[in-house]
Amino acid sequence: MPTYKAPVEDVLFLLNDVFGFHRYDNLRGFSDASPDVMEAVLNEGAKLAETVLAPLNAVGDREGCTRHPDGSVTTPKGFKAAYDAYAGGGWMGLSMPEEYGGQALPHTLNTAIQEFASGANLALGMYPGLTQGAMAALLVHGSEEQKALYLPKMVEGAWTGTMNLTEPHCGTDLGLLKTKAVPNGDGSYSLTGTKIFISAGEHDLSENIIHLVIARIEGAPAGTKGISLFVVPKFLVNDDGSVGARNPVSCGSLEHKMGIHGNSTCVMNYDGAKGWLIGQENRGLNAMFVMMNEARLAVGVQGLGQSEVAYQNAVAYARDRLQGRALTGAKAPEKAADPIIVHPDVRRTLMGIRAFNEAARALVLWTALQADIGHRSDDEKQRQAADDHMGLMTPVVKGVLTDKGFANAVEAQQMFGGHGYIEEWGMSQFVRDARIAMIYEGANGIQAMDLIGRKLPKDGGRAMMSFLGEVQTFIKDHGEDDGMKPFVAPLQAGLNDLQGATMWFMQNAFSKPDNAGAGATDYMHLLGLVAMGYMWARIAKAALARQAETASEAMAAKLVVGRFYMERMLPETATRLVRIKAGSETTMALSAEAF
Amino acid sequence: MPTYKAPVEDVLFLLNDVFGFHRYDNLRGFSDASPDVMEAVLNEGAKLAETVLAPLNAVGDREGCTRHPDGSVTTPKGFKAAYDAYAGGGWMGLSMPEEYGGQALPHTLNTAIQEFASGANLALGMYPGLTQGAMAALLVHGSEEQKALYLPKMVEGAWTGTMNLTEPHCGTDLGLLKTKAVPNGDGSYSLTGTKIFISAGEHDLSENIIHLVIARIEGAPAGTKGISLFVVPKFLVNDDGSVGARNPVSCGSLEHKMGIHGNSTCVMNYDGAKGWLIGQENRGLNAMFVMMNEARLAVGVQGLGQSEVAYQNAVAYARDRLQGRALTGAKAPEKAADPIIVHPDVRRTLMGIRAFNEAARALVLWTALQADIGHRSDDEKQRQAADDHMGLMTPVVKGVLTDKGFANAVEAQQMFGGHGYIEEWGMSQFVRDARIAMIYEGANGIQAMDLIGRKLPKDGGRAMMSFLGEVQTFIKDHGEDDGMKPFVAPLQAGLNDLQGATMWFMQNAFSKPDNAGAGATDYMHLLGLVAMGYMWARIAKAALARQAETASEAMAAKLVVGRFYMERMLPETATRLVRIKAGSETTMALSAEAF
Repeated sequence: MPTYKAPVEDVLFLLNDVFGFHRYDNLRGFSDASPDVMEAVLNEGAKLAETVLAPLNAVGDREGCTRHPDGSVTTPKGFKAAYDAYAGGGWMGLSMPEEYGGQALPHTLNTAIQEFASGANLALGMYPGLTQGAMAALLVHGSEEQKALYLPKMVEGAWTGTMNLTEPHCGTDLGLLKTKAVPNGDGSYSLTGTKIFISAGEHDLSENIIHLVIARIEGAPAGTKGISLFVVPKFLVNDDGSVGARNPVSCGSLEHKMGIHGNSTCVMNYDGAKGWLIGQENRGLNAMFVMMNEARLAVGVQGLGQSEVAYQNAVAYARDRLQGRALTGAKAPEKAADPIIVHPDVRRTLMGIRAFNEAARALVLWTALQADIGHRSDDEKQRQAADDHMGLMTPVVKGVLTDKGFANAVEAQQMFGGHGYIEEWGMSQFVRDARIAMIYEGANGIQAMDLIGRKLPKDGGRAMMSFLGEVQTFIKDHGEDDGMKPFVAPLQAGLNDLQGATMWFMQNAFSKPDNAGAGATDYMHLLGLVAMGYMWARIAKAALARQAETASEAMAAKLVVGRFYMERMLPETATRLVRIKAGSETTMALSAEAF
Repeated sequence: MPTYKAPVEDVLFLLNDVFGFHRYDNLRGFSDASPDVMEAVLNEGAKLAETVLAPLNAVGDREGCTRHPDGSVTTPKGFKAAYDAYAGGGWMGLSMPEEYGGQALPHTLNTAIQEFASGANLALGMYPGLTQGAMAALLVHGSEEQKALYLPKMVEGAWTGTMNLTEPHCGTDLGLLKTKAVPNGDGSYSLTGTKIFISAGEHDLSENIIHLVIARIEGAPAGTKGISLFVVPKFLVNDDGSVGARNPVSCGSLEHKMGIHGNSTCVMNYDGAKGWLIGQENRGLNAMFVMMNEARLAVGVQGLGQSEVAYQNAVAYARDRLQGRALTGAKAPEKAADPIIVHPDVRRTLMGIRAFNEAARALVLWTALQADIGHRSDDEKQRQAADDHMGLMTPVVKGVLTDKGFANAVEAQQMFGGHGYIEEWGMSQFVRDARIAMIYEGANGIQAMDLIGRKLPKDGGRAMMSFLGEVQTFIKDHGEDDGMKPFVAPLQAGLNDLQGATMWFMQNAFSKPDNAGAGATDYMHLLGLVAMGYMWARIAKAALARQAETASEAMAAKLVVGRFYMERMLPETATRLVRIKAGSETTMALSAEAF
């Protein structure tokens, strides 16, 4: 049976030592998050993840969700109690405003908790995760009335939320959507259509489900310019806030999926369901993007969470499993064989996963911190810089962390040999569950296109220039520091590749957009490699500072793992650059029929 | 529903044009394989794969195998009839000697058929596949009596075979095995012990199952030097060759696996089961290696098979699914959107899979041809060179083709967006099924260690020197040919990296074996990249020759795909080299407890 331990120490080190969280006390809500409070919150979150969520992970996979003939859906045994513990602990509103019952703590802290939940039980964590996404959209685009009606119940966890975008013929290209909204004349609309792949669309965890649905108002323009966003509750809400009549929106069937069996993935049928417009007519995509950006970061965190839990279990197995002898002579001569962790190829695998996990966690928390700054700073310039960073890094966090998170789950599974392929050991579930994160909230190819087509050129490339400048400054500031040399020189090489690729696109992609498309995925990974390399350099700086005070094994290990990243992982930037510079000629040369 | 089309044309092109099969008519059995015969055999095999095996692939995944209380196992509906068609078509003995009822055709041809079967239905194809492995061991190490007793029935398909190596505490490290063999005094032995992960260990496809089992004869030395190989039939065989009494070997349970549900993976209990020694006492590993080398090549072919079928279905989807518009303007303005195959990132994915598939197929057939030469040539020097090649390439074919085969199945699944995650579409099955090939017959890390620790240094590095020399000669011979320039220059760069890595190991691995272990996997992939690059160069040469005769779209496409490989895939050698040269210091620096 796999186990999970939340990386509380690492989060605290990152927040306190690497990112100097205390320097942001000027941000609204941050002064409440004293080091003591943070530690207490993280420890409580860890306890929930380790003792309540994690033990249900395998159960959820085996049992899955069941749809009954009346359209109701039952979640796996134990999920309801675990969800209640989650909601009851106040986790849903951890960073929501106090006026709706939230605790208004930094989103950065919430993000750390999201990692814990995703690592412990991805399928279960999605129910509150989607609710947080829906709350984010309501908070920004909902009317005061809507916010007052829905948010307190959602913050409390009594009601959950969903996102309804996809239709059978329309996933990435939302302009094709057909779900119709007809005005009822009383300010409400009647929605009719079919949505698919709706996570948490129907279940038995909450007394109401608040669906956010995109649809086309009768007579609206074709394409994405005619899309509006609606709030459609499963049960209509009475004026006093109590739950009223059932709205004609129902789960038509559950999807039979590769993984995340514990989450109900529904086909949702809207048969004249009553909904209310969120924000302006035909501006639904704008409102939806708020929810999607939030969700994309959360999905990147899921990739990290699965990579972390897979790593932990692979380490435990590698320490335990006896097979063969170390190349340099027996390490456990009293036993029939050495534990496989003595083998360099096993270590290479484990080090690779860990070097990713720790840098990815830093990238995630750093980006979440920028989200906090963007939302809570009073300084416009600071806000703008933070928003730039968020925009640039969102596709990277989503695309790179889920690609690598999945690949790492596969690598961790490999450590188990044949046992990794047997469901009882739990490694297969991590692989199957992690797989979805590469797909939903915009498949990773779409993330790459978002990065290169939208985020990179935005405001004359300001966000990227700022990132390149920041890393270059860091290198300059630390180039003479002996302890930092193993980090700074490789980082410079990676940065040069990133600059080279960026320049190449500037020169070759405007005139020939296919060059951008053909290099997009490599560019996303190139930026991810360098961003994580920068994280390692910052981690190394903090670890060296701590080491200078008191020698610690944990900090010594950090420096070793960081060097591993610099020596073996960051140099992949060179290959990414070569691919980008290959352009699109051969990629586009064949006719569709020639494939 | 996914479909499968066997790549008959590509195999014929490779055999006839690229490898000049007709030049090997001096080999025993090759003169029977005239171009006409080969084409007929391939077409028949394709028909079987496409119309009999492929339609049962999803059925097998959904239904799985069932063990009954009496220990008997039922395979999925339709498998028995399909197996009968396979056996009845004479496919089991395609390249087995005529004296046992085989057709004695080249193993190269058999390998092509293995790809078809693996692509169409991996789980089903494993039943005959394991039988072929068992036959190979019997053929080389069995006594005349054993061969006469078992082979004709196995060639006929009336009996199937298995390999019994793994035990709960012992997978890679066979020296730990505990299964005991006690001499009965009549030339037979009584075997007692438990074997796990036994593919096709029990089923309802054949009237008898011939288990090849490794065990330790009472009093044998500890470790791998005390291992003997036995043949243990499920039903004892009477002197007249008829099936007699049940032997006490039985299936204790079926494993619940991530994939290949249609194949019965058994825990096998030997309770004093009667067995007979194959070959010499305590030399069981030698005999087992024959079977394992055969099986490792076949497993590499499985990786290719799954990559090919995943590619075919991704292409069909990409041509069909309408979503978004081409970056260069609408390609299907009459439709609501363009098919996604217009998008560069989709093409990049498809081209990458295809560029691998076609080179991997070449590598597999080239290596199988060397196996034929090794077995059938009368020229000792030719045989030695062929054996060298086989030894060197076996871990590459197994390790690289299954790593990439799985990764490609994942990439192909990604093309489907959310639909790829839903079981009904079939892409998930390709991913789940392909995953096992990285694990069984020696996990891929073991393949890498076999390459670097055994195959590379063997005979003073003769095999590798010969390969490097062959590629260098090819480059020299074609460097001045304009048409070959896009292939020859990148190949030289890749070859330089391979030579650099080989030199580095010569200088740094003998004194510090961990340097070999830490670089092994990268070296295996580096060799795989260059070997496939060499294949592309040879394919390009043949394609240019054909183009010089008559322009053909197929050959034009070959040249484009080959250039894609050279521009975007082969350059990965540089990163592999950097990783190798990083050595083992950081990899080995942490204590086991620090992970």
